[in-house]
Amino acid sequence: MENVFNIPQLSGNLRKELLQSAAEQFGTPLYVYDLERIEARFNALKQAFAGRKALVCYALKANSNLSVIKKLASLESGADCVSLGEIKRAVMAGIPKYKIIYSGVGKQDFEIKEAISLGILFINVESKEEMLRVEACARELGISARISIRVNPDIDPQTHPYISTGLKENKFGVSIEEAKGMYLHAHNAEFLEPIGIHFHIGSQLTKLKPIAESAQKIAQLTQSLLALKIDIKFFDIGGGIGITYSDESTISPYDYAQAILAELRGLDVTIVCEPGRFIVGNSGVFLTKVLYQKENQGKRFVIVDGAMNDLIRPSLYAAYHQILALKNMESKGEAEVAGPICESGDYLGKNIVLPHCERGDILAVLSAGAYGFSMASNYNTRPRCAEVVVENGKIRLVRKRESFEDLIALEKEYL
Amino acid sequence: MENVFNIPQLSGNLRKELLQSAAEQFGTPLYVYDLERIEARFNALKQAFAGRKALVCYALKANSNLSVIKKLASLESGADCVSLGEIKRAVMAGIPKYKIIYSGVGKQDFEIKEAISLGILFINVESKEEMLRVEACARELGISARISIRVNPDIDPQTHPYISTGLKENKFGVSIEEAKGMYLHAHNAEFLEPIGIHFHIGSQLTKLKPIAESAQKIAQLTQSLLALKIDIKFFDIGGGIGITYSDESTISPYDYAQAILAELRGLDVTIVCEPGRFIVGNSGVFLTKVLYQKENQGKRFVIVDGAMNDLIRPSLYAAYHQILALKNMESKGEAEVAGPICESGDYLGKNIVLPHCERGDILAVLSAGAYGFSMASNYNTRPRCAEVVVENGKIRLVRKRESFEDLIALEKEYL
Repeated sequence: MENVFNIPQLSGNLRKELLQSAAEQFGTPLYVYDLERIEARFNALKQAFAGRKALVCYALKANSNLSVIKKLASLESGADCVSLGEIKRAVMAGIPKYKIIYSGVGKQDFEIKEAISLGILFINVESKEEMLRVEACARELGISARISIRVNPDIDPQTHPYISTGLKENKFGVSIEEAKGMYLHAHNAEFLEPIGIHFHIGSQLTKLKPIAESAQKIAQLTQSLLALKIDIKFFDIGGGIGITYSDESTISPYDYAQAILAELRGLDVTIVCEPGRFIVGNSGVFLTKVLYQKENQGKRFVIVDGAMNDLIRPSLYAAYHQILALKNMESKGEAEVAGPICESGDYLGKNIVLPHCERGDILAVLSAGAYGFSMASNYNTRPRCAEVVVENGKIRLVRKRESFEDLIALEKEYL
Repeated sequence: MENVFNIPQLSGNLRKELLQSAAEQFGTPLYVYDLERIEARFNALKQAFAGRKALVCYALKANSNLSVIKKLASLESGADCVSLGEIKRAVMAGIPKYKIIYSGVGKQDFEIKEAISLGILFINVESKEEMLRVEACARELGISARISIRVNPDIDPQTHPYISTGLKENKFGVSIEEAKGMYLHAHNAEFLEPIGIHFHIGSQLTKLKPIAESAQKIAQLTQSLLALKIDIKFFDIGGGIGITYSDESTISPYDYAQAILAELRGLDVTIVCEPGRFIVGNSGVFLTKVLYQKENQGKRFVIVDGAMNDLIRPSLYAAYHQILALKNMESKGEAEVAGPICESGDYLGKNIVLPHCERGDILAVLSAGAYGFSMASNYNTRPRCAEVVVENGKIRLVRKRESFEDLIALEKEYL
């Protein structure tokens, strides 16, 4: 019964007793992150590229809690940011500016200027229009802007359509042809310094072939740019390595690195990678308390205090998360684990095998470290829950639970 | 060119010049609500039930801004709440406690006790288990709890599966058979007072027949309860009347009321209805600014500063919202209106007919008054936008835009 917890979806440090005690001490719903597992995952990826010039830039969007970022900063991680807010979080948590890259299709002038002024490593530009904005901002500041261009290799990543980004019908990046023209423009521009090339074909990737094919296409483009004396120093392979939610077989960091390196033979570039989910996904658990168990005409519902406002992945992506009961493991068959929100779409899991659940039992929703709290809302005027981390067997609060006062703070004065 | 704005999705008060000036004055993205249209919609429904004892309880979950609730309070609206947070909002905005009802499948003890202590009109209970909790809480307080039981009529509302709630495979309510037993229990219980009966089959309903059929089933049940001397005073018909997003034909308040009243012949009950979207949906607009227009291999993308974190309905429900450009109406063909978030699922509209868009142009996403801001998140560390209202031709801030400091306030001290 104990070893049901020895599964890839859950770190060894997050033992049942510890999770139970976290729920009792900090209340539910609650996010719990294992900083040691985060460290192990980060190091596994770093090791895979050992011997090569490489920079691992943690993708903050997966989990942007300041204490999580601080832990990664202590491991010498860089940061992949997609908004000025994320850049500020990275800086505040101790990531050096020269290890920060700034991606995203909708950068605004004030964000671009701040990024240039701060002196981050480079800005990933997503379109010609954006490159011209970056140039205009750089000229205005009188500072040259280091850029990388996101090239869309038009390769099907074979993942969920919402998190697939490398097909030509996506909003992301530019075609290889367009990229060439943009590099030539940037090369000749006074205030642009094209130092990187970038691709990212999607998230939760579990197949190596689309990644290798993309790397090959982009490596060829890099060769032709170098031949034009455009000095590409950074080869940004994006992120997106998948994790195990159910029984997916995943890509090992070693195989991943080897597949990329095989395509880079002869290229003297620093590899940049942008893992988010890979580092934090299986390092986190969402704890929720059973409120009621009810049967509706033969179907069992376990109503819990966590909801789609806390963890929207099941509703939004029809994503599967394994769910375990902490106290009692004896199966009583399948149930829908549903939250208190007034929508049928408010569920954490369907057809989940669970024991008979009693009021007050704690359920652990696994693999919830990525795209969990970072997507949380206040729907139904539900305060966002607390976040805690576990390190050296100790549990520590890293974000306070919201209060009703927090929720109305910005509108109260206008009443 | 002007009269393109004379459409059901947009109120006459929200003229182009006014919206343009709101965007300039308060920045984008921005939610704009027309308080006069909210008033008109509320009154239309109230009028439809005129001559009958009736109470319109606005469903806060659609839009819980305090100033919107205050406006409805001034019109003598009641409130349908689904959390203690919503009850607190209703009270704070001036809705009398005796006009507040409390619904939802996952009520917690502290919420139930507070609701009983406040003396709200009644609690809609969703299961036998929950009724027993309400009873236990009431006994503990020594105050009798007024309840209504949500009965699931097992009728297909013909709407989106996520917002359909009246089928037996849903988590909501209890069957007619189970309800009878529960009413008998409550009738004999010292601390329960069963004064209401409730059904709600789904949201965004555009067909009258399922509503009438449900009302008929529940009216029959009410008759049999009255025969047992169970004094049902409130007949709660739920909410869910649909609105026009595209070209849906909708239910008129008059037809709606007539259909319900036809089923209630001979029943001396107060009708309670719980409209949310009907009142605020078409009364609100989401304004967003064009950042870039880009073509990716033949497909046009208009990248804007609003995103799925601001308005998640397109991503979550594949919902359609009409989108208009304020300055220039000349069609240039279809485009995808996409936000800056790094997901292909981050779009506000697909195949939207728009003019050529210039950087800085303002787009109005219509019918965004319901389930817009109330579902907003900070995904990608994006501050939630501001909300303004329009009344007597004047624009007034009702919720301040979030700052970076607001976003990290609850985690900074643990860094």
